[in-house]
Amino acid sequence: MRQPEPEPQSFDRVLSSMCTEPHPDARAAAERFLATNPGDPATYDAVADLEARAVEGLATLAAHPTPADAAGYVTSGGTEANVQAVRSARNRHGEGSKKGGDELNVVAPESAHFSFHKAAELLGVELRTVPLDDDHRADPEAVAAAVDGATALVVGVAGSTEYGRVDPIPEIAAIAEEAGARFHVDAAWGGFVLPFTDHAWSFADAPVDTLTIDPHKFGQAPVPAGGLLAREDAALDALAVETPYLESRSQATLTGTRSGAGVAGAVAAMDALWPDGYREAAERAAENADWLADELADRGYDVVEPELPLVAADVPESEFRALRDAGWKVSRTGTGELRVVCMPHVTRAALRAFIDDLDRIRR
Amino acid sequence: MRQPEPEPQSFDRVLSSMCTEPHPDARAAAERFLATNPGDPATYDAVADLEARAVEGLATLAAHPTPADAAGYVTSGGTEANVQAVRSARNRHGEGSKKGGDELNVVAPESAHFSFHKAAELLGVELRTVPLDDDHRADPEAVAAAVDGATALVVGVAGSTEYGRVDPIPEIAAIAEEAGARFHVDAAWGGFVLPFTDHAWSFADAPVDTLTIDPHKFGQAPVPAGGLLAREDAALDALAVETPYLESRSQATLTGTRSGAGVAGAVAAMDALWPDGYREAAERAAENADWLADELADRGYDVVEPELPLVAADVPESEFRALRDAGWKVSRTGTGELRVVCMPHVTRAALRAFIDDLDRIRR
Repeated sequence: MRQPEPEPQSFDRVLSSMCTEPHPDARAAAERFLATNPGDPATYDAVADLEARAVEGLATLAAHPTPADAAGYVTSGGTEANVQAVRSARNRHGEGSKKGGDELNVVAPESAHFSFHKAAELLGVELRTVPLDDDHRADPEAVAAAVDGATALVVGVAGSTEYGRVDPIPEIAAIAEEAGARFHVDAAWGGFVLPFTDHAWSFADAPVDTLTIDPHKFGQAPVPAGGLLAREDAALDALAVETPYLESRSQATLTGTRSGAGVAGAVAAMDALWPDGYREAAERAAENADWLADELADRGYDVVEPELPLVAADVPESEFRALRDAGWKVSRTGTGELRVVCMPHVTRAALRAFIDDLDRIRR
Repeated sequence: MRQPEPEPQSFDRVLSSMCTEPHPDARAAAERFLATNPGDPATYDAVADLEARAVEGLATLAAHPTPADAAGYVTSGGTEANVQAVRSARNRHGEGSKKGGDELNVVAPESAHFSFHKAAELLGVELRTVPLDDDHRADPEAVAAAVDGATALVVGVAGSTEYGRVDPIPEIAAIAEEAGARFHVDAAWGGFVLPFTDHAWSFADAPVDTLTIDPHKFGQAPVPAGGLLAREDAALDALAVETPYLESRSQATLTGTRSGAGVAGAVAAMDALWPDGYREAAERAAENADWLADELADRGYDVVEPELPLVAADVPESEFRALRDAGWKVSRTGTGELRVVCMPHVTRAALRAFIDDLDRIRR
């Protein structure tokens, strides 16, 4: 079966990913823990200890009231964390009765990540997506109109996938509380940038029950390292399945075996970068996004002004195709706009080269 | 947050894990692909190509009728693959109607991995576990008695977690076919050993619809690298969720972001080891298991004779505790027997040292 080895992706022209080149310390830590499984803590105790540190670090970023004993774990990414938040809310709604999921619903803005659609399909709950306001944010009135007594979970997005928008988290949280629903914040991408902004998004800003925050995005950890946090242990307890042969009592994760590399990499990245390194990365990314938005606007494109470091613009299909043919990894929003994510690996020089190519294509 | 780095697990005394020290080629490949995400193939195309090779390699091992275009993907592990097999069968049962899961059931032997309990809880299906025969194998009569028109899936285990037993796969498959249910084989652990035995377990041996086979177990790939295979594309199509912003149409995986390291490591391991390296590892493991079983039997313990390289014996709780205190990572079956998994990293020298420690403890 021996064939020539393909080269791993270079990040030089990757403008579409919400992941990034890991911090060197994180890469080194990941390499050391490649063969360990945090899903089996009685066997792999060193990585289990590291996972506790990762959760404490994430909980610190997300202003959890008690970071040192916050409930949470390192997931495979935002999808797993979001699925688990829906599952926990489903299982806790009408506590103890464990009634079938198909009567329950989840209310989320249209901007919610497709993992919520996956969660609904998996878990047998109805996903009610509600319209956004004129600036791509959840509209509290629409959320309020959609919730009812069967709403197990309301979702707010803090850094949306398509436009990098932050929903009015406190207002939506209040609606969820009023309806007797749990409230989840998806800060998978935004979580390592938001602490350096004025946005209200964290456990400190609203009665958030669960929160997704991914080290392998702006946290500069290697893939796969996502994060699920919960205000109360009960949110994770509602996910536990017995594990007969593991010398640990139960397992609250979606997957079984998990990546020790991701856990060790997440801890090493946070050790190296929190808070100053992350602040600098966030500021640099914001400056790059603003620069790119200006350059695109100067060329007459309709640009969605960046709020977090993500730029969307109505570049025509033919130019989009030509950019991809030129080797640029770019992607599109649901309505076809070009979408550039200014991750830490995206330098000003790369963006200049990108704009130069765009100018060449337009000629 | 800087703290001293804990050491990764040494495998010297790990007798409880179904994972192992990765092959050096696999480790090197994983290190190169640490920052890539097979969940986003339009961005990370090199790792997407590698995943196709991984699936072909796994399909070759499992005697898929058309390995080069077998349906499947590299999962985070056996749990994800098993959950997805249940989800696919649920979604396909009564094709098109997509009726709520709670009317449906899955029939599995009591030896089925706890991931099937997790799957049932997640997916809202009833799990019917049926008794085993005297040698810890699924009893076809008990399976036949449990299936009915609402049975979406029947599960057979080829290498059980507790005793390493292989169920009578052809007989159970026939029962599933008769009942109009899909049939899944869980060869997560056994899949890289079974090709070198006479057991009937693969796509060639029975009308198997889906099969779990994990590179990160006997395949000597780094964590996380599991595998799900399907006889027909339709099995994966039933899992697809639309992915608006990824420049790839849909995603059939349970998680979103996945491990490029796992994919690249799986391919490198199979390139290096299939078939001769795996055959040698399987033979060495079998010899070690037989040796250990004999040593334990000589000391008067009740030993469950190894069929695949896994030894269980009724070592008393006090001795088990003393072995763990001596640093041995051992675990127990549901009924409390000591359980030793003779993975490739478990050498004869390690087993001798283990027996020496046991003798010291018994004195």
